Amino acid sequence: MAGIAFGRFDDSFSLGSLKAYLAEFISTLLFVFAGVGSAMAYNKLTGDAALDPAGLVAIAVCHGFALFVAVAVGANISGGHVNPAVTFGLALGGQITILTGIFYWIAQLLGSIAACYVLKVVTGGLAVPIHSVAAGVGAIEGVVMEIIITFALVYTVYATAADPKKGSLATIAPIAIGFIVGANILAAGPFSGGSMNPARSFRPSCG
Amino acid sequence: MAGIAFGRFDDSFSLGSLKAYLAEFISTLLFVFAGVGSAMAYNKLTGDAALDPAGLVAIAVCHGFALFVAVAVGANISGGHVNPAVTFGLALGGQITILTGIFYWIAQLLGSIAACYVLKVVTGGLAVPIHSVAAGVGAIEGVVMEIIITFALVYTVYATAADPKKGSLATIAPIAIGFIVGANILAAGPFSGGSMNPARSFRPSCG
Amino acid sequence: MAGIAFGRFDDSFSLGSLKAYLAEFISTLLFVFAGVGSAMAYNKLTGDAALDPAGLVAIAVCHGFALFVAVAVGANISGGHVNPAVTFGLALGGQITILTGIFYWIAQLLGSIAACYVLKVVTGGLAVPIHSVAAGVGAIEGVVMEIIITFALVYTVYATAADPKKGSLATIAPIAIGFIVGANILAAGPFSGGSMNPARSFRPSCG
Amino acid sequence: MAGIAFGRFDDSFSLGSLKAYLAEFISTLLFVFAGVGSAMAYNKLTGDAALDPAGLVAIAVCHGFALFVAVAVGANISGGHVNPAVTFGLALGGQITILTGIFYWIAQLLGSIAACYVLKVVTGGLAVPIHSVAAGVGAIEGVVMEIIITFALVYTVYATAADPKKGSLATIAPIAIGFIVGANILAAGPFSGGSMNPARSFRPSCG
Repeated sequence: MAGIAFGRFDDSFSLGSLKAYLAEFISTLLFVFAGVGSAMAYNKLTGDAALDPAGLVAIAVCHGFALFVAVAVGANISGGHVNPAVTFGLALGGQITILTGIFYWIAQLLGSIAACYVLKVVTGGLAVPIHSVAAGVGAIEGVVMEIIITFALVYTVYATAADPKKGSLATIAPIAIGFIVGANILAAGPFSGGSMNPARSFRPSCG
Repeated sequence: MAGIAFGRFDDSFSLGSLKAYLAEFISTLLFVFAGVGSAMAYNKLTGDAALDPAGLVAIAVCHGFALFVAVAVGANISGGHVNPAVTFGLALGGQITILTGIFYWIAQLLGSIAACYVLKVVTGGLAVPIHSVAAGVGAIEGVVMEIIITFALVYTVYATAADPKKGSLATIAPIAIGFIVGANILAAGPFSGGSMNPARSFRPSCG
Repeated sequence: MAGIAFGRFDDSFSLGSLKAYLAEFISTLLFVFAGVGSAMAYNKLTGDAALDPAGLVAIAVCHGFALFVAVAVGANISGGHVNPAVTFGLALGGQITILTGIFYWIAQLLGSIAACYVLKVVTGGLAVPIHSVAAGVGAIEGVVMEIIITFALVYTVYATAADPKKGSLATIAPIAIGFIVGANILAAGPFSGGSMNPARSFRPSCG
Repeated sequence: MAGIAFGRFDDSFSLGSLKAYLAEFISTLLFVFAGVGSAMAYNKLTGDAALDPAGLVAIAVCHGFALFVAVAVGANISGGHVNPAVTFGLALGGQITILTGIFYWIAQLLGSIAACYVLKVVTGGLAVPIHSVAAGVGAIEGVVMEIIITFALVYTVYATAADPKKGSLATIAPIAIGFIVGANILAAGPFSGGSMNPARSFRPSCG
């Protein structure tokens, strides 16, 4: 594993890099559109009722399926990060330069913001839900929970997609990355929200 | 990516093409039978109650699983489009000629109509549900939502099944195509119906 | 595709064939144990309430997951039929001889019966549920529905696992076979029971 | 298949073995965190209501997804056992030495205990649920049920991940291992708890 590298501007503006930013933008848009959309669909169906187990399954399965696909469709272009935390984790291991990683972040945040505005419009102006810790869960507990499940996600990325000796694991890597998020939402959703993704939570003035 | 091509009649009537139309007919029939059948199953179980989150999961998972299989079983014969929107998207990129694409459309529409009639018969004459935008969602909003999720589907087809440099993504391409539809139904189902498929929505005099 | 072949007794009693019968017995036992067990679990949780959409999801997902695994674990030994209808369909296409197919049937039926008795014991003597057509669905409609969904299953087996030119579809064939059954239970379960499997329905004096 | 081997200390303390213990610790921690967390999430959402079918789906899908990922991320380092019963089963077949297997057990138990304590903290002190046989199910019935479903799990490991002639099954082995546990929880959960995993059940002074 290489160390952290800052990178060079000409690399970060190569045609391949620009394609990668666009791929991250689209993948994050499609992932957040489906994932946040499923939470809004629950509110629509139930008249904003409190979350119940069937709704948790709906939201978790949607995130799991959508992230799997978002990672898969980006895999050959940008690596399919779809998440600033994943990009940060891969930069720490030297898998992406700091400079290119910052542009990945921007693309991811723009994709998430775009998804948020589109959701607001196409649902006829419904509120876009935001994560918050549940009653009985303190801020620190919520942060620790997010740290653990985000670690699980980045660990999965490293052990499947980013491992140079991954072998046949490469084939199912996008499924594993999507499904660990689905599983962790089923566990953490009712406590910390189960975000694992700063882009998904970052929606200034929308929501 | 090649440009749009009209194609030649002898190509569109080759044995391989005729097999492909049959494969599209069967795949679309089986997909629509399961998918629309799951919506009718919900109505049967609940006495036509309003959709709830558990029912949304049932319908979305059924569409996701069934489309994955419909794409997989057609993959080596017709490419497994199972959807006029996908065929249209691939014709725009020159992956299929206009002429052959029109026969794909006919096969898909016939498969969907056949599924609809069979469903009506085997359920003892129950109504075949049709998609409509939900209360509070305008026609334009519904169209925009369908455009976004249909784009997600066609983008997934291009980035996995149709990409000449797809590598190991080819193996999981049918799963990705099925699951993006499952995810998008979980998000869009309660708003626009989450169709993404003109064949699935086209059922003249049936329904 | 070869024609129907009766086969020879020495082939059907080779060590490889005997291993295949054992593999079919174990795979069918494990599949029926999980699948029928999930229907009994629903009855246990709800006090034998009428099926609701959440219960349908539980039963369909269980069958889909369990059949995928039952096919996968048998794939390299017996081909992973786990179903007399699949064995019959493959015998029609010359993929297995009539004689060996009959022993497959016996192994599958014994596996299903064993699963049924074990379920009865370990659940403290609960009734083992059997399929029946729903109110409002005639016997003929139920049979037509089972024909369609069983065709979907056998077609999937031919197009993925049994196709000599399957290529990378071979890798996901067991998943496709399991998930088409999961999807079809979500559609047909409330109408015909969604069996697709004579072994699963054949439990003399048990149930 | 080789016989049981005791093994040598220098093998069990090689760098590769130490990495494998760490991988087992992390995989088991992440699996138990998600799996047990999903049971706690159900209690949180419902105010400790009795389990219903939607909750059973949530817990079973979470275990299935999380075990798949836990096995996948450990596959190239430790083989991805994530379960003392699997390690025991593989030791019986000579796939791992007794000595190394004991260290696997220790790593798995420590991972499970760590997950338990962290869950207790991050949920604001909620009780960590433990498995118990349901009303109407005797201790012997519960044990027999656990034996059958644990056999299903170990059989799946042998037929997919551990089979030297597995071929393309290797690619989907982690999915099969995860999903057989998901399926068996849907069947056995309401009767015996559906553990299949001594590490998951072993939490001295926690819970």
